[in-house]
Amino acid sequence: MTDMPDTMTAIQIAAPGGPEVLIPVDRPVPRPGPGELLVRVAAAGVNRPDVLQRQGVYPPPPGASDIPGLEIAGTVVAMGEGVSRFGVGEAVCALVAGGGYAEYCTVHETNALPVPAGLSMVEAAAIPETFFTVWTNVFDRAGLEAGETFLVHGGSSGIGTTAIQLARAFGATVFTTAGSPDKCAACARLGADHVIDYRQSDFVEVVKQMTGGRGVNVILDMVGGDYVARNYDAAAEDGRIVQIAFLRGAKPTVDLNALMRKRLVHTGSTLRPRSVAFKAAIARALEERVWPLIESGTVKPVIDSIFSLRDAAAAQARMDGGQHIGKIVLQTGL
Amino acid sequence: MTDMPDTMTAIQIAAPGGPEVLIPVDRPVPRPGPGELLVRVAAAGVNRPDVLQRQGVYPPPPGASDIPGLEIAGTVVAMGEGVSRFGVGEAVCALVAGGGYAEYCTVHETNALPVPAGLSMVEAAAIPETFFTVWTNVFDRAGLEAGETFLVHGGSSGIGTTAIQLARAFGATVFTTAGSPDKCAACARLGADHVIDYRQSDFVEVVKQMTGGRGVNVILDMVGGDYVARNYDAAAEDGRIVQIAFLRGAKPTVDLNALMRKRLVHTGSTLRPRSVAFKAAIARALEERVWPLIESGTVKPVIDSIFSLRDAAAAQARMDGGQHIGKIVLQTGL
Repeated sequence: MTDMPDTMTAIQIAAPGGPEVLIPVDRPVPRPGPGELLVRVAAAGVNRPDVLQRQGVYPPPPGASDIPGLEIAGTVVAMGEGVSRFGVGEAVCALVAGGGYAEYCTVHETNALPVPAGLSMVEAAAIPETFFTVWTNVFDRAGLEAGETFLVHGGSSGIGTTAIQLARAFGATVFTTAGSPDKCAACARLGADHVIDYRQSDFVEVVKQMTGGRGVNVILDMVGGDYVARNYDAAAEDGRIVQIAFLRGAKPTVDLNALMRKRLVHTGSTLRPRSVAFKAAIARALEERVWPLIESGTVKPVIDSIFSLRDAAAAQARMDGGQHIGKIVLQTGL
Repeated sequence: MTDMPDTMTAIQIAAPGGPEVLIPVDRPVPRPGPGELLVRVAAAGVNRPDVLQRQGVYPPPPGASDIPGLEIAGTVVAMGEGVSRFGVGEAVCALVAGGGYAEYCTVHETNALPVPAGLSMVEAAAIPETFFTVWTNVFDRAGLEAGETFLVHGGSSGIGTTAIQLARAFGATVFTTAGSPDKCAACARLGADHVIDYRQSDFVEVVKQMTGGRGVNVILDMVGGDYVARNYDAAAEDGRIVQIAFLRGAKPTVDLNALMRKRLVHTGSTLRPRSVAFKAAIARALEERVWPLIESGTVKPVIDSIFSLRDAAAAQARMDGGQHIGKIVLQTGL
C-alpha cells in the first residue's frame, strides 16, 4: 500500500434525477478486505442499471458502494489477506456490485479475470457486466444449445451485441431486433442471422416466417411490457424466455393458454445481488469457454464511445439518448 | 376377438352445452391397432377437461376419439399386433386421449399399467389422469425435492388430493387451499401440513407466515386469473410455478420485478396432446416409484362418488356443482 493516495476522484449521485446529478467528488480510497484486490481503475463500463440507480429506482444491494458502476478494468495495486491468484501489477477486469465509477475499486479476486490478451483496458472494461449477464441467463438459465434458435431484443445494446456474438459462437441461429437501419447493420456485422427493424416489421411475424411457423427456442428480453405477450407468441414449443429488465413496463398481461400449450418456461434474474461465490462460478466458466474466443478475435466487445470519468454525466446522457451502438466506457486519466 | 359385440354403449356430446348434452348412444366397438389393447371398461374417471370438452372449449386432439373420458380401468379382451406386456384377461388401468366414457376403449399398451394390488376397478380408474399429471408437472417439470415446500391449490379436487399425497410421500412440506371446512378437513386427513380455507384467509399471508417469510418452493396451480400474481408473491427465491389450468382466467397480469428478483420459473403444460412415448415414460416412472406406495396403502385415490356410465350427465353435473371431494367415477354394468 505504499505510494497510494488517501483520496480519489469518484462519481457520486447527488440526488435522484437526470444525468446532471452525477458529480465528481473526493472519496477515500477503499481498502481491500480478505480475498479482495484493490484495482487502480483504468476504465469502467456504463450500464443501464447505473442509469436506473441514478434515477433512484434501483438502489444498490446491502453492503455495496453507493458509487455507481458495475464493471472495471485496471491494475492491481494492493491485496487483502489470502489473495492467491493475482499479484500487484497485474491487469484485470472485474464485475463489481458498485463503485466502478472511481479511480480505485475493490473486488473479490474470484470475481476478477485477467484482461484478455490483445485487448485494451477500455475494451476489457466493456466486458464483465454483459458477458456475465448473458452467460448466466442464456446458457445456464435458458440452456441455449447449438442448433437452436435464439432471439435477443435490443441487439445493438451492450447486452445485445454480446448476446448476438456468444449465441452465434456457440452454434445458435440468432434473431435480433433493433430500432434503426444503422443499428440493424451493426447487428448484422456482428453475425446476427436475422435482424428485424422493429419500427418496420412485427418481430413475431418475421420469427414465425423464418422458422417455418415453429418460433424460437430461447428469447432474452429486457423490454417487458407488451413484448412479453409477443415473446410468448414468438416462442417455440418448450421455449425458454428470460427476462433481465422491463424498460416498457413491469406488469404485462400474459397468456396462460400459450404458456401451457407450448410448455414455455418464463423466468428471469438479476445478477447484482448474487453472492461472490455465484459470480465466481460464472467467472470460471467465462474464462474457460469465452476468454479463448475473445483472445482469438471471434468475439469482441463493441465500443460505442469513451468519456472521461469526470464526464460520467455526459456518458449517461448518451445512454439516455438511445443512439449508442455497443458499450459506453469511462476512462480515468483523460 | 371372439364373443365380442359389434356395438357398445358410449357417451356422446350431442352439442356444446350443460351436462344434459351427454347422452348414451350405440357406437361400434373400437378395434385395437398395432401395440394397442382393447379394454372392456369397468370404470372411467371424470375429469375437469371432460367438462371443458363438453362445453366446447377443449376439443380433442387430432386422432383422438370424440367420446369424452381420459382414464379407464378394466379387463384386456383383445390385442393388436405386437403387444408384448399384457394378455387377455389382465386387469389394467390406463391414460387415454379420449374415449373413456364407453364400454370398450383402446389404449397403447405402454400407456396402461396393471391395476395395483388390492384396488377395485373404480379406484384404479380414478388414478391415471391425476397421477400422470401430478408426476410430470410437480416432479419432472418443477423438480420438487424432499425437504422443499409445496403449495397446491384446490386441495380437495382430484388433482389436489393426488398432489397432497404424492408431495408428502416424497418428503415435501405441503400447503393447500380449499373452499370449505369439509374440504379443508379432507385435505388435512390426506396429510397436508398446512390447509388454508381461501374463503377465510389469504393464502399468501399464511404461506409467508409459516415459512418465515421465505415462501414456497413449488406451486401447482389450476386457478389462474388473480392467483397468478398471488402465486408470484407466495413463491420463494428460485420458486417454480406450474400452470395446468386457469379456471379463473387465462390472461392475468404478472409482476416481472418479482419474477426477476426471486428468479422464479413460471411454466405449464397440457398432457393430453403429448405423444404415446411421452406418456409411456411417465407410466414407467409411476410404476416404479408410485405403484409400491399405492400397494402399501401410503397413497390412495380418493373417491367422491360413483355413477352409472349412462348417468354421465349427472356425474358431470356433480363436478359442475363443485361440492365433490376427490374423484367422480363412472361404472359400467350398473
